[in-house]
Amino acid sequence: MTRKTLTALHDLRLAVEPALDQALPPEDAWPETIHRAVRYSLFAGGKRIRPVLVLASGEAVGGAREEVLPFACAVEMIHTYSLIHDDLPAMDDDDLRRGKPTSHKVFGEATAILAGDALLTRAFHLLAEMPAGLDETRVLRRVQATAVLGEACGTSGLIGGQVMDLESEGRAIDARELERLHRAKTGALLSACVRGGALLGGATEADLALLTRYAGAIGLAFQVVDDVLDATEGADQLGKTAGKDEAAGKATYVGIHGLERAREMAVKLRGEALEALEPLGPRADRLAEIARLIVDRHS
Amino acid sequence: MTRKTLTALHDLRLAVEPALDQALPPEDAWPETIHRAVRYSLFAGGKRIRPVLVLASGEAVGGAREEVLPFACAVEMIHTYSLIHDDLPAMDDDDLRRGKPTSHKVFGEATAILAGDALLTRAFHLLAEMPAGLDETRVLRRVQATAVLGEACGTSGLIGGQVMDLESEGRAIDARELERLHRAKTGALLSACVRGGALLGGATEADLALLTRYAGAIGLAFQVVDDVLDATEGADQLGKTAGKDEAAGKATYVGIHGLERAREMAVKLRGEALEALEPLGPRADRLAEIARLIVDRHS
Repeated sequence: MTRKTLTALHDLRLAVEPALDQALPPEDAWPETIHRAVRYSLFAGGKRIRPVLVLASGEAVGGAREEVLPFACAVEMIHTYSLIHDDLPAMDDDDLRRGKPTSHKVFGEATAILAGDALLTRAFHLLAEMPAGLDETRVLRRVQATAVLGEACGTSGLIGGQVMDLESEGRAIDARELERLHRAKTGALLSACVRGGALLGGATEADLALLTRYAGAIGLAFQVVDDVLDATEGADQLGKTAGKDEAAGKATYVGIHGLERAREMAVKLRGEALEALEPLGPRADRLAEIARLIVDRHS
Repeated sequence: MTRKTLTALHDLRLAVEPALDQALPPEDAWPETIHRAVRYSLFAGGKRIRPVLVLASGEAVGGAREEVLPFACAVEMIHTYSLIHDDLPAMDDDDLRRGKPTSHKVFGEATAILAGDALLTRAFHLLAEMPAGLDETRVLRRVQATAVLGEACGTSGLIGGQVMDLESEGRAIDARELERLHRAKTGALLSACVRGGALLGGATEADLALLTRYAGAIGLAFQVVDDVLDATEGADQLGKTAGKDEAAGKATYVGIHGLERAREMAVKLRGEALEALEPLGPRADRLAEIARLIVDRHS
């Protein structure tokens, strides 16, 4: 992440940290083990791309920040739960995540499974905790955004993608299957961030259609860049085991299309994302910044 | 379960099965593995005590069945997810559940973890899928019931109880800790069934207070009877490994209070539950039936 993008998105990231902290029981709440484990992974130095995307999407349609903030917290909890479970020995069996030992390495498998469950549960619980006296329009928007998130996390989204990922290990899959896999595993949640943030911010149908196009493009770009980084950077830069996808025999964009073509795809997708934002004008500047950040990142 | 209670609650159970079936993608939906695993556990012959409790609670306050049915499905999904995860090798390491091999024995650990995740996700997703045109009162009730469920499934409820359960293995815990454990692990979800069903059915504050007392009593009774059965019945009757709690060095009501006293506790709790229902009159007859069923069951 460059200094420029850090600055441009800094206030959004700053808004997320205390909100996440307040949305969870304190670390010493009973039973302590689980709260320590939940906070260990949630505050492990993630870049907060998903919650920032939620906030920037709300902003792009003129919504107030407090109306989208709980949703921003919920998506980061869900992203973190999915990382904890994906890293388990029975799944991807990863020892390192964001440069730190994974949850099951620190707390053991049972607690890691439960910490993931706790984050998933808390995400939906948080969205159902509506302020007393919230007007009907806002209650309905919250419910709609929750349904979008539920769909994205289910068996046709996040979970389905992980199943397909596990099943594709060690066998050849074609470009179409690979795209389907990533649309489910990475794209669905990123898209839910954009669409949920926009719904909560009061998007019109036309806004929502533009932002859905934007979301599709950055979702795919995100995975292409991940594959490029996995193939080209070391563990120090990535904060996780490098070259792991190749070692596990997993299909990647680099494996199917080659490094050069994968890089070109990412740039083309960034262009599609920026084009979709144009009619929204300067309010969507930060969404544009995120599209650039996703494609130009180095870890 | 006696023939009499089966008959008395039969139409409630009959309402649950097709609703659960319709709330899930078909077994051959992509990706098939996960849908097979989800359905394997959800339709494994469970007694449906929780969803029946939801429906009977809605009925006890005069609510229409269709208003509580999605919540009934959600609690059964959550109960099933918790069983799948609790049975994992890293947790209780159980091979049998309801007389059938556990999920990880059939589908492997990775799929079992994801099947649990999928059921938990679908439960909250289902509650956010509200029919178009639902009036504001009913939308708010649904949101309130969802918040009650979220609390019950979180780190102060279902998950906290499982953490405490794992941590109590092989060490002596006293009667007070044991009660805290079970209020979290079993009681919280049973209580959410009753309170959620009552909220969705349009309960008054007074009704809700009575039903909360009822729920506390049956929640504890349920666990006491579980411990009695674990100590006295064989695997054939239980459909799961018998005497397992004792072998694992787990604290049980029978271990702390002895068999005779544990049986007396269950009967006393049944009395407290029935007493709480009295002011509700005949509409609460089926809740009374459930209290009797919980205490008199043989598996």
